[in-house]
Amino acid sequence: MRLLIGQTGAPTSVVNASLRGFLDGAQGHDVLALRGGPDGLVDGRFTPATLADVPPEWTRRGGSWLGAGRRAVTDDDLDAAVATLAAHRVDGVALIGGNGTMALLAALTERAERAGLPLCTVGIPKTVDNDLVGVDHCPGFGSAARYLATVVPDLARDHAAMRSIEPVRIVETLGRSVGWLALAATRHRDDPAHAPHLVLLPEVPFDSAEFLHRVSDTLDAHGRAFVVTSEGAARELTDEPFDAVNHTRILTGGVSRRLAALVTAELGVVARGEVLGMVQRSAAALASGVDRREAAEAGRCAARLLAEKATGLMVGLHRTGTDPYAAGYDPVPLADVAGRTRPVPPEWRTTDPAELDEFHRWLAPLVTE
Amino acid sequence: MRLLIGQTGAPTSVVNASLRGFLDGAQGHDVLALRGGPDGLVDGRFTPATLADVPPEWTRRGGSWLGAGRRAVTDDDLDAAVATLAAHRVDGVALIGGNGTMALLAALTERAERAGLPLCTVGIPKTVDNDLVGVDHCPGFGSAARYLATVVPDLARDHAAMRSIEPVRIVETLGRSVGWLALAATRHRDDPAHAPHLVLLPEVPFDSAEFLHRVSDTLDAHGRAFVVTSEGAARELTDEPFDAVNHTRILTGGVSRRLAALVTAELGVVARGEVLGMVQRSAAALASGVDRREAAEAGRCAARLLAEKATGLMVGLHRTGTDPYAAGYDPVPLADVAGRTRPVPPEWRTTDPAELDEFHRWLAPLVTE
Repeated sequence: MRLLIGQTGAPTSVVNASLRGFLDGAQGHDVLALRGGPDGLVDGRFTPATLADVPPEWTRRGGSWLGAGRRAVTDDDLDAAVATLAAHRVDGVALIGGNGTMALLAALTERAERAGLPLCTVGIPKTVDNDLVGVDHCPGFGSAARYLATVVPDLARDHAAMRSIEPVRIVETLGRSVGWLALAATRHRDDPAHAPHLVLLPEVPFDSAEFLHRVSDTLDAHGRAFVVTSEGAARELTDEPFDAVNHTRILTGGVSRRLAALVTAELGVVARGEVLGMVQRSAAALASGVDRREAAEAGRCAARLLAEKATGLMVGLHRTGTDPYAAGYDPVPLADVAGRTRPVPPEWRTTDPAELDEFHRWLAPLVTE
Repeated sequence: MRLLIGQTGAPTSVVNASLRGFLDGAQGHDVLALRGGPDGLVDGRFTPATLADVPPEWTRRGGSWLGAGRRAVTDDDLDAAVATLAAHRVDGVALIGGNGTMALLAALTERAERAGLPLCTVGIPKTVDNDLVGVDHCPGFGSAARYLATVVPDLARDHAAMRSIEPVRIVETLGRSVGWLALAATRHRDDPAHAPHLVLLPEVPFDSAEFLHRVSDTLDAHGRAFVVTSEGAARELTDEPFDAVNHTRILTGGVSRRLAALVTAELGVVARGEVLGMVQRSAAALASGVDRREAAEAGRCAARLLAEKATGLMVGLHRTGTDPYAAGYDPVPLADVAGRTRPVPPEWRTTDPAELDEFHRWLAPLVTE
């Protein structure tokens, strides 16, 4: 078979592990690499690739060997992509990505079928946001979570030392519509004062009076308040767009700075807002080993599914054991995943990190190593 | 002797190594810990401390076991501090800090002498900014530099993958008045397009037209431009204060966002400004091993100097060998250091990372391990 492997959306620390996993699983088949994300799909930037072409050290790096990118794909784009796939006699396409990618792949599946092109399609899950349905967690998330679980405790200790001039510090994680990464940033429980003291998620409506009250109480109790916020929490405070088509507009965050300004205006204390930024998705030196292995296995599974002529699927990632931790990869229908997002479940929707012990136990195997 | 050890200024990833080094070197003496930075010095927050009181795991953590902080110390504060030191019968004071701390220690030395209090004083150098005179480099700098040398290449690869929607990315390092950390962020030389493409230092006057011209040329050549800037570069674009007394006002950066807005306004391309923030000084998981050992040795030397009744000195840190790398610790007079800053030397003042090979060789032993 002739298989095409590509990536759309943004890189993660382990996306190149998925690529190498796929190329490993696809050995014996003819593989083309789609370079440059959705633009490359539409324009037909396909070049032959084997495992030997992707240096193993790329699995220890941020970024994406394939390139990546976003694009609001139109019907004309889909037609162009189908024609290009037909011209290259591609039998199967695997795309690494999140819910936008899975929607693109579902649309491509449907469009190819309508055009009479026999095409197998399999999605390889990837998102630091962890908002794909159909999986226990998503490749990419564990590494971003491990970065946060590593550096946020240090930021909290740094803040403890500097509280006399900066009583309130508010750090902002990725997560426009879901709070998984903000929750991961609360893993730290060994500080005497149990910072972070407060966490804000998009899933929990922001209550300005309650927020200020909690910050004020924390200041009274600990002489400082250390807050974690999702970039998408308290969206009424930001003027960034929330519904840019397919994330084609870059979002630079900033709600932490708005919250800090609110604290200073209302409570009269110095506050710092700090956006943690793109390093969360690219800091490969602090990537999770479990995440890297699962990302590779997800790639391998995708190649196997295409070789078996499966189509319209996304590789799953299911927790099959908790002690010891184990995962399985049974696929899920693309149609069940495409365009949907998975918020933090109700039992973990809280502003109080002390209520998150069960979440921290769930998270532990993904970030410990 | 009765010795007092404290820290003023902000923490670094290795400041607790200096503390443990001091407590190790001071064994056999009576040691008091000054908790809470300059406020603690003025208020007399002194408690007995031994090596056993500071858990070794604190040398693998951000923040400061002693606590830290900043304060614009007045003459009255100095009088109070001298009275408190006399009441506690302190024979020698070591303060870990940067040039503000050394100025405070010099003033305290002079004030004690005038009050007839026999007091020995030794400074232990500490600053991620690397702007202390009298040393080859400063404990703390190597770890912040290693963080940058590790994550900035990943950010550059992430940017390469996302260039279709975000052609310009500008990342901002610490360094209000000096560009040492921005230079460290250019260490990455293994990208095909040799990002970072451009670096902005406070030591090099900002030329808006030249900057835009260079960004535009880089876009033409590589399809993207990845820029590193010191927070203190292009200061005419910021409205943050530059001369807050003794850094007592928090500074949140943001020149990268101003530069990004300039690029978008003038070149019509999407640009992201990203402030790397406090994680540079606190991310102990990526701290430099050489830095940690040197920080500990600087602490040990300070204890030894006080035991020898030396006074008015700062522990030095001199490069005594390059192949293999080796360092020595001959002290320098506090008066030569106090309140001065050391900019990047003229030969490394450039906007072109390709001209920094000699700097990168100088940096290598401090960040490799």
